[in-house]
Amino acid sequence: MRAADVGDVTMGSLVAAYGAPQAVEAIRARTLPPEFVAGQARHERPPNLTACLNAWYTRMAAANPAADIEAGQRSGARLIIPGSPEWPTQLDQLGRSRPLGLWVHGNADLRFSCLRSVAVVGARAATSYGSHTAAEFGVGLSESGWTVVSGGAFGVDGAAHKGALAAGAPTVVVLACGVDVCYPSAHEPLFAEIKEKGVLISECPPGVHPTRARFLIRNRLIAALSRGTVVVEAALRSGALNTATHALSLNRHLGAVPGPITSAMSAGCHRLLRERKAVCITSPEDMIDLVGVLGDDLAPQIRAPAVPRDRLNEPTKRVLDAVPSRGGAGPASIAVAAGMSLDATLSALGGLAAAGYIERIPKGWRLRKQTASYRKAPDSTALEPPPAPEPDPAEVPPPPDDFPDPEDVPPA
Amino acid sequence: MRAADVGDVTMGSLVAAYGAPQAVEAIRARTLPPEFVAGQARHERPPNLTACLNAWYTRMAAANPAADIEAGQRSGARLIIPGSPEWPTQLDQLGRSRPLGLWVHGNADLRFSCLRSVAVVGARAATSYGSHTAAEFGVGLSESGWTVVSGGAFGVDGAAHKGALAAGAPTVVVLACGVDVCYPSAHEPLFAEIKEKGVLISECPPGVHPTRARFLIRNRLIAALSRGTVVVEAALRSGALNTATHALSLNRHLGAVPGPITSAMSAGCHRLLRERKAVCITSPEDMIDLVGVLGDDLAPQIRAPAVPRDRLNEPTKRVLDAVPSRGGAGPASIAVAAGMSLDATLSALGGLAAAGYIERIPKGWRLRKQTASYRKAPDSTALEPPPAPEPDPAEVPPPPDDFPDPEDVPPA
Repeated sequence: MRAADVGDVTMGSLVAAYGAPQAVEAIRARTLPPEFVAGQARHERPPNLTACLNAWYTRMAAANPAADIEAGQRSGARLIIPGSPEWPTQLDQLGRSRPLGLWVHGNADLRFSCLRSVAVVGARAATSYGSHTAAEFGVGLSESGWTVVSGGAFGVDGAAHKGALAAGAPTVVVLACGVDVCYPSAHEPLFAEIKEKGVLISECPPGVHPTRARFLIRNRLIAALSRGTVVVEAALRSGALNTATHALSLNRHLGAVPGPITSAMSAGCHRLLRERKAVCITSPEDMIDLVGVLGDDLAPQIRAPAVPRDRLNEPTKRVLDAVPSRGGAGPASIAVAAGMSLDATLSALGGLAAAGYIERIPKGWRLRKQTASYRKAPDSTALEPPPAPEPDPAEVPPPPDDFPDPEDVPPA
Repeated sequence: MRAADVGDVTMGSLVAAYGAPQAVEAIRARTLPPEFVAGQARHERPPNLTACLNAWYTRMAAANPAADIEAGQRSGARLIIPGSPEWPTQLDQLGRSRPLGLWVHGNADLRFSCLRSVAVVGARAATSYGSHTAAEFGVGLSESGWTVVSGGAFGVDGAAHKGALAAGAPTVVVLACGVDVCYPSAHEPLFAEIKEKGVLISECPPGVHPTRARFLIRNRLIAALSRGTVVVEAALRSGALNTATHALSLNRHLGAVPGPITSAMSAGCHRLLRERKAVCITSPEDMIDLVGVLGDDLAPQIRAPAVPRDRLNEPTKRVLDAVPSRGGAGPASIAVAAGMSLDATLSALGGLAAAGYIERIPKGWRLRKQTASYRKAPDSTALEPPPAPEPDPAEVPPPPDDFPDPEDVPPA
């Protein structure tokens, strides 16, 4: 594992074709199997195999696998490889870039934890909005039985892990360094708690420090382990967008949390939404609806609040609209204003009076005080005494297609 | 026009088939043409024609068209009908619900103003974020030569109109009451200024007060007049969503501005995005890109900021990542860490030193101070002294497909 750096696809092909022991033999002998060389040459961008072989040889000479395994065991980590009972088989979809092995540290079972898992990723330099949202998602997903997978970094990653721990659920940290290296070091207490309840994993051998390249390569594991990825906050230039690209290329679900358009930390999310690469996610339920099993994990339909007026039938509403809030009007003029016959108007007026919407005064009919006071914009209340019947376009029920009458819903 | 309330589709069909004078004759005689009755009966939900006719007759008896026209002229408004030079022909797409006529008040030409227009709509009870965004869109759209169409209400509507006026551009207010009625009355100075530079329009005769139904029916005009509608802020129950529905049913473009998921005033926008009914809009340029002419009105591609490191080639970046920030390392150990041959490493080290990225010290090579200090999350700077080469996943350049090298762009 020390011979090639993580994510080396040429090494991945070699090991996939001949197995790790034969690959090691070949590198020691500095001769690759001729069929492999011929196969690699057919690639669109053929790798420089001589350079690869030299690099692998040099690195292998410096490697000490026995010491690595001992260091891992000393720190309490275990090494799993494809075929181990704990190996998450969804990683096989990575093909040639599937990791050769994973170091796992923690009490949870990696494979089992990742069966129903969501990656929550985002900016390290998260705003308070981003951290708050990530924590809410960590709690919400965990409480619904979903494992949070993330990168253990500052900002969104850390907040998501903390949310999961707060809900008492295991969470999976995918590191870009050895599992015995604590990066960032301020997350030492967090990682210690995760080792108790969840797992820290890495494809890097113990003692390896993170590099830029390893962060990018690590991101493919976060995307591949989980059923879907949600980007909570991301600037236009962000590692989280790299994870999002991996999720899309693996045909995993991708969600993005919107934020204020004035926030640079949401610009990456908005671009994903604008390019229709990601689904707009506003709650953990939305994300579960996206990644969950059809029928089982449906998000509850968000309903607009119902007001008593919704229950009136159409002619009655028209009559109610035609009744003045001050003064008073006779049935005939109300009928003209509502565009209805006098009979129908009289019948509606009777019903409205019985329901308490209107009252009879010497001059005719008028609205009762409480029904005339609809919620208004704060400034309008101060500036403007309500004129005639006070209509509030912001509270008008939209067309029936969008907001089915709450009365229509059959009881569950 | 007084006989039927605005948006009466049965009256619309009658006038479309026989013309307004014959329709008036028929109502006066209380007999509809038999072919018309037969045609209406074929509809899926046939209207109650007797009730309609009675209502029209009653209302027509109370109407005084000459007084309406005089009142309009006295207030300074003009009446236009389909066929007038100022009639915006895009309203014809409303079919049976096309208004019979429009009262127009203001110095701008309605038809010309709406040729390139965008409807900016949203909640009356807008947050400061919504008002700010609406004003920015008003200014931005106007400065690019697009007319802002809205409803003149408090909140988003008013802010959008004010933004347009601030940019010195005409703007179109579609009222739900007569053009001589100032609703909301606190907008009197705003409406006065719009009459100077733009227009106020309404399909209601002078003196008519707004009702709930008229607000909803007015919204179809806002959607129909403009090439696209952008919803800035909307609760789940909002008149702006009604305008959005009209825009979709007219096959006009629909955009929605995202906001914090913690804001109830953005929940309606987020639902439009989630259901993929609306495009995510983060700037006036985004909206112009949506509604504009292909090629002419393209939004500038938003680019992530470039950092000098982007310009290095791949092997050089790998070598740079392998150089420690403290201590120092010889070329051989750097070559092993980077997984490259010694020759290639030495050549890259020379280049990096010449470009000022690294420096030679007695113990070998190390990063120069300024290149080691990448931007970090605010908390991380305080908590954690930088370890080894400081990788910053949030600043790592994403894959080339997403962010083409800024150097690749040919000069305009």
